[in-house]
Amino acid sequence: MGDYIGYVAAVLTTVSFVPQAFKTIRTKDVSGISLSMYLIFTVGVLLWFAYGVSLGNPAIYLANGVTAVFSSIILITKVRRAVGEKQRHP
Amino acid sequence: MGDYIGYVAAVLTTVSFVPQAFKTIRTKDVSGISLSMYLIFTVGVLLWFAYGVSLGNPAIYLANGVTAVFSSIILITKVRRAVGEKQRHP
Repeated sequence: MGDYIGYVAAVLTTVSFVPQAFKTIRTKDVSGISLSMYLIFTVGVLLWFAYGVSLGNPAIYLANGVTAVFSSIILITKVRRAVGEKQRHP
Repeated sequence: MGDYIGYVAAVLTTVSFVPQAFKTIRTKDVSGISLSMYLIFTVGVLLWFAYGVSLGNPAIYLANGVTAVFSSIILITKVRRAVGEKQRHP
């Protein structure tokens, strides 16, 4: 029962970034998105990925590898928009 | 070394939601924020919290308990704004 909760939890926190990434790609609306959050979070999941690899634990590295992809998409879109904003209003 | 990476990873993915929550509270700008993401993510971290409690593992339940608080703040702000939008444009 305990492990079952863990698996469901891992799937939910991993897939949750999919709708955000699709919304961000579709609308390019990142004004309400925190750059600091996605910088810190993306580094964090990449470290989780490294931790999973170091343990040889596929559950940890697969879940965090997938999350890192979607989190990076959101981060890159935010950075591009932030750079674009700065060029228009230097 | 491996465990050290895990601790740093856990701290980063936990604290990353703090700047997003503060930005959301300050600006109330949630147009680019995905409601689906925060619904799925908040349920996910609450299940991680329950999993940590069931294992008696404070690292899991403390990290996810803190994340659940900040994630809920963002979710509640998004839901309130979505409801407000619907009332203005029914």
